[in-house]
Amino acid sequence: MARVVTNAERAAIGLCDALGALGVSTVHEAQGRTGLMAARIRPIQQGVRIGGTALTCEVAPGDNWMLHVAMERARHGDILVVTPTSPCDDGYFGDLLATSAKARGIRGIVIDAGVRDVADLRGMGFPVWTKAVFAQGTVKETVGNLQVPVVCAEALVHPGDVIVADDDGVCVVPRAGAAEVLKKAEKRAAMEEEKRLLYAAGQLSLDVNDMRERLAEKGLRYE
Amino acid sequence: MARVVTNAERAAIGLCDALGALGVSTVHEAQGRTGLMAARIRPIQQGVRIGGTALTCEVAPGDNWMLHVAMERARHGDILVVTPTSPCDDGYFGDLLATSAKARGIRGIVIDAGVRDVADLRGMGFPVWTKAVFAQGTVKETVGNLQVPVVCAEALVHPGDVIVADDDGVCVVPRAGAAEVLKKAEKRAAMEEEKRLLYAAGQLSLDVNDMRERLAEKGLRYE
Amino acid sequence: MARVVTNAERAAIGLCDALGALGVSTVHEAQGRTGLMAARIRPIQQGVRIGGTALTCEVAPGDNWMLHVAMERARHGDILVVTPTSPCDDGYFGDLLATSAKARGIRGIVIDAGVRDVADLRGMGFPVWTKAVFAQGTVKETVGNLQVPVVCAEALVHPGDVIVADDDGVCVVPRAGAAEVLKKAEKRAAMEEEKRLLYAAGQLSLDVNDMRERLAEKGLRYE
Amino acid sequence: MARVVTNAERAAIGLCDALGALGVSTVHEAQGRTGLMAARIRPIQQGVRIGGTALTCEVAPGDNWMLHVAMERARHGDILVVTPTSPCDDGYFGDLLATSAKARGIRGIVIDAGVRDVADLRGMGFPVWTKAVFAQGTVKETVGNLQVPVVCAEALVHPGDVIVADDDGVCVVPRAGAAEVLKKAEKRAAMEEEKRLLYAAGQLSLDVNDMRERLAEKGLRYE
Amino acid sequence: MARVVTNAERAAIGLCDALGALGVSTVHEAQGRTGLMAARIRPIQQGVRIGGTALTCEVAPGDNWMLHVAMERARHGDILVVTPTSPCDDGYFGDLLATSAKARGIRGIVIDAGVRDVADLRGMGFPVWTKAVFAQGTVKETVGNLQVPVVCAEALVHPGDVIVADDDGVCVVPRAGAAEVLKKAEKRAAMEEEKRLLYAAGQLSLDVNDMRERLAEKGLRYE
Amino acid sequence: MARVVTNAERAAIGLCDALGALGVSTVHEAQGRTGLMAARIRPIQQGVRIGGTALTCEVAPGDNWMLHVAMERARHGDILVVTPTSPCDDGYFGDLLATSAKARGIRGIVIDAGVRDVADLRGMGFPVWTKAVFAQGTVKETVGNLQVPVVCAEALVHPGDVIVADDDGVCVVPRAGAAEVLKKAEKRAAMEEEKRLLYAAGQLSLDVNDMRERLAEKGLRYE
Repeated sequence: MARVVTNAERAAIGLCDALGALGVSTVHEAQGRTGLMAARIRPIQQGVRIGGTALTCEVAPGDNWMLHVAMERARHGDILVVTPTSPCDDGYFGDLLATSAKARGIRGIVIDAGVRDVADLRGMGFPVWTKAVFAQGTVKETVGNLQVPVVCAEALVHPGDVIVADDDGVCVVPRAGAAEVLKKAEKRAAMEEEKRLLYAAGQLSLDVNDMRERLAEKGLRYE
Repeated sequence: MARVVTNAERAAIGLCDALGALGVSTVHEAQGRTGLMAARIRPIQQGVRIGGTALTCEVAPGDNWMLHVAMERARHGDILVVTPTSPCDDGYFGDLLATSAKARGIRGIVIDAGVRDVADLRGMGFPVWTKAVFAQGTVKETVGNLQVPVVCAEALVHPGDVIVADDDGVCVVPRAGAAEVLKKAEKRAAMEEEKRLLYAAGQLSLDVNDMRERLAEKGLRYE
Repeated sequence: MARVVTNAERAAIGLCDALGALGVSTVHEAQGRTGLMAARIRPIQQGVRIGGTALTCEVAPGDNWMLHVAMERARHGDILVVTPTSPCDDGYFGDLLATSAKARGIRGIVIDAGVRDVADLRGMGFPVWTKAVFAQGTVKETVGNLQVPVVCAEALVHPGDVIVADDDGVCVVPRAGAAEVLKKAEKRAAMEEEKRLLYAAGQLSLDVNDMRERLAEKGLRYE
Repeated sequence: MARVVTNAERAAIGLCDALGALGVSTVHEAQGRTGLMAARIRPIQQGVRIGGTALTCEVAPGDNWMLHVAMERARHGDILVVTPTSPCDDGYFGDLLATSAKARGIRGIVIDAGVRDVADLRGMGFPVWTKAVFAQGTVKETVGNLQVPVVCAEALVHPGDVIVADDDGVCVVPRAGAAEVLKKAEKRAAMEEEKRLLYAAGQLSLDVNDMRERLAEKGLRYE
Repeated sequence: MARVVTNAERAAIGLCDALGALGVSTVHEAQGRTGLMAARIRPIQQGVRIGGTALTCEVAPGDNWMLHVAMERARHGDILVVTPTSPCDDGYFGDLLATSAKARGIRGIVIDAGVRDVADLRGMGFPVWTKAVFAQGTVKETVGNLQVPVVCAEALVHPGDVIVADDDGVCVVPRAGAAEVLKKAEKRAAMEEEKRLLYAAGQLSLDVNDMRERLAEKGLRYE
Repeated sequence: MARVVTNAERAAIGLCDALGALGVSTVHEAQGRTGLMAARIRPIQQGVRIGGTALTCEVAPGDNWMLHVAMERARHGDILVVTPTSPCDDGYFGDLLATSAKARGIRGIVIDAGVRDVADLRGMGFPVWTKAVFAQGTVKETVGNLQVPVVCAEALVHPGDVIVADDDGVCVVPRAGAAEVLKKAEKRAAMEEEKRLLYAAGQLSLDVNDMRERLAEKGLRYE
């Protein structure tokens, strides 16, 4: 029942770039506080913010064979999204696969398992979000699924969805609604920029956002 | 029963600076190995060491409203100490609140929950000690308590206590005893400086601290 | 029953250097995917890769006395391997012990417990792999064992075994087989270098490693 | 954006009963080793095995309001499937809601959060699978979604899907394929029954399943 | 600085009995959703519900000496509340100490560490709430504090406070307010009893608690 | 490199029975507080206490093939000790393998991974100590090692060592020293029996064990 779906549609790369530039927190808020992967997915580098299209890959525990299959299916702008069929911290991905991924146009990897060769990965500038750093080697015995819908770190991901990743973690934007989310995210970013100036000048969010009355109604007392 | 206590006394800022300069490990030892927050509270930056007065803030899970209330109560030298009423990793604090906090004279935040916008927070140089980095947005529906005694990451904190934080974590020094702790901490630091020179020269702590006899009494055998 | 074994043989330092240079992932693979410590053991620094001989140290929970004893037994090229007799996150090791360790020729520490003074440790360039950063102080009441076989972070370590540590974690190479492991590791590194060039040029591991037929046999379908 | 979908189709109750009788492990295997919730979801009772239709409920952290809304939407044979929008251990569900749930025909609850009043729940015979037992009270301030697709404990659940739960955990069977899964599960159960007799008589699975040749091919050596 | 405070006042035993009978969830709610210990504290038995006065005991990691000291300070109706100065899972308490505790009138133990001999403890009917079951033995080298305020499993406990414990966990009621909390808890229990009857008869909490209008205001839509 | 060692010597079964009868805590203490597996290994049943000889089995993550191989190597009195080569919670062992194990004279299983069919296992009375209950199915693709030394849950186990398991967890007694450990354990049990009578009569361990003077020397003060 292992299968590779070859005709997955991707979100437009321009959308990915624009959403990526806005970052995880803003995009997550803009789509109604949805789409986040669990907090256990952390970057191995600092200061990288990217957007791309999900190339989903389901692997057996301790078996990275399907990552090799994934390399052939990659398109420029893809971000590998890897989820094991049961929890596993093994080092599925290292510098060799990263070399191949880079050559095939993959922008980064998001994996709810482990990676290794992290010094090399950082050196290559290949961005990684992962649950664990662990050198444990894997086998190539069991086939899995490529480009099927997966749950990765508690987020549902369809092939071709937009993946946004930065120092805050990873957010998934369904392909169909991505353009609308971008609009809302840009609006939110602009609104936040305004508030930032007011707060930097010492104004209080209590006043800027008119919170005092409602706080009193809720029973907040000053002593 | 939500309340904001407005007249909390703070430890003297000079004491905070002096304790902050000595750092968490030294201060913790000097007050009899007490006052540490749990090891899950980690900095998002490296190389920052600060002291300040606790501005305590109790929040509902997934609700950061009281942080907005806290901004108004801040004084120069305060460190926000945030604890949720039940465990929560949501991103209570991000770049907007940090902008406000900085403008209001807050030196940093210690939070037994999550933060987001960490790239911005690092960029601003606003120091953060936290349990989690997680972009999950919060609501503003439930009021809590400000400037009341709280248990934060298993440490008891009263408003106005001295908070010391660095790469080793966070230590709380009760306001009343802070001056005495400072004396002991300075003494300890001086004593450690002496030992450091001896150890650097190759001397053994077994000799410097005269441990051999007691080790033998305890039954240590060399084979 | 606490004892210090004084005549432990060490692996040759040249072997340690050579294995250290190859790094954890390569060495782990070369010895048949064995020898890794658990993923909870993480470096406090980035970009350090070392090899050395295990100086094993078994300590009581919350008691770092045996680390002081260990300093005297150290030889140039040793790496301290510390394991508590029950799980403990306390800060067993800080800048004073690191000063002594450095002066005694110890190359680094691997500890399945906590360390403190990490800003100083990073500043000194003393490499540390640890389960936790925690300032909690320890006592000196209970003696333990030095240079006996220990299980550290789920890996069996004999005194004098080769310890390899880098950003990927820690790997143990039994002294007896170390020379053979080195040969295999070098061979593997050379083979990986070849593949890296092919992958960088865009070739697929499916072809380079001739995987397509076996994948089909296992039932992988393209849709 | 909070919504209650009122027209969700349910799997046939007979299918639920039949799948429930076969149990989690058999059903999970029968549908290709898919559909399991994470191992953190554990029963508070022993020896209960049920099947039912998913009544999905998405709640805010620390807020159980939507569970009250869910009671009205329940049909006989439903199993409540509750997932918070971010991780939370609070006690969302206790004896009062269980009383209501029972009266409304709900067969049990599966919740990736906490429950309380567990002594009463056990006494009532209302079956519960949960991540945590925690008495922490919740508020009623934030609305969520009812009968929408959710990810619960890393499994995707659509309203009306079949939920199977027993001492091994929880498995989700998509409504569309449930009849086919039942057939395969029954076949598997029959086959296992045959093997059980052979094994009980002392025969080896090596022989029953003809494994020896393949083991040798894979390189297994006897010494 | 280790000390035993000998004159701690206890809450009245009648209050303890009454609060104990109401149970953790009701009491926790009655005092404004405060006082709970963390969810990691679990009973080793089922179906026990007790109240008593806190006999607080602070111990070093891996060292149970102060538990022996505690036996002498016990009064009828006390519940031992044990917290280590840093996290530890060792087996501080087993059947011998339980025998002594029972003989001295102690009603049970709450410990943020480990216990052992749990089969015997269950057999004796001595109630235990604990973080871990672990046979690891402890030493008697380091003195600690008895009957001082402690933070146990993230709850602040003063000597003589009321401890309520049942299958839901552990709740602390400060001595001063215990009588008032009892009144509120009884009121709450009565109110819940009324609701239970309505719910059992099939009425909805949406109607009983008049929630529909507010849900609509918050934006809940039916589709 | 996968191998099955066929000539492993076992500890005498009488020793196993005697040590098993004394239980984990007593045996662990008798051999100098060593030999415990980590606290994560918990029984799925209550009230079972057994001893037997270790039949060690090393498995790949998500692959239970070697358990089938193990059945043939079992002797009466063996206890299966299973450890994965990297952390894994999958359900390696269920009712079919238990049926076979029982028929082959195996007394129980200790596994640092997951099991399933736990209702059946309890029903059969086949004792299990495990890290997880999880229905996740496994494959049969990768061979491992049988009857070689393993680290299981942080304890070193050689084939034929004595395994003692009860409600407190699991303890390993090396074959060579088992007879001596038994003597010490019996002595300890007798001594504890004496103390139990004294404590039950209300005597204090402070007096029975003559602790008062040493406590005072250590600085314990009564206030």
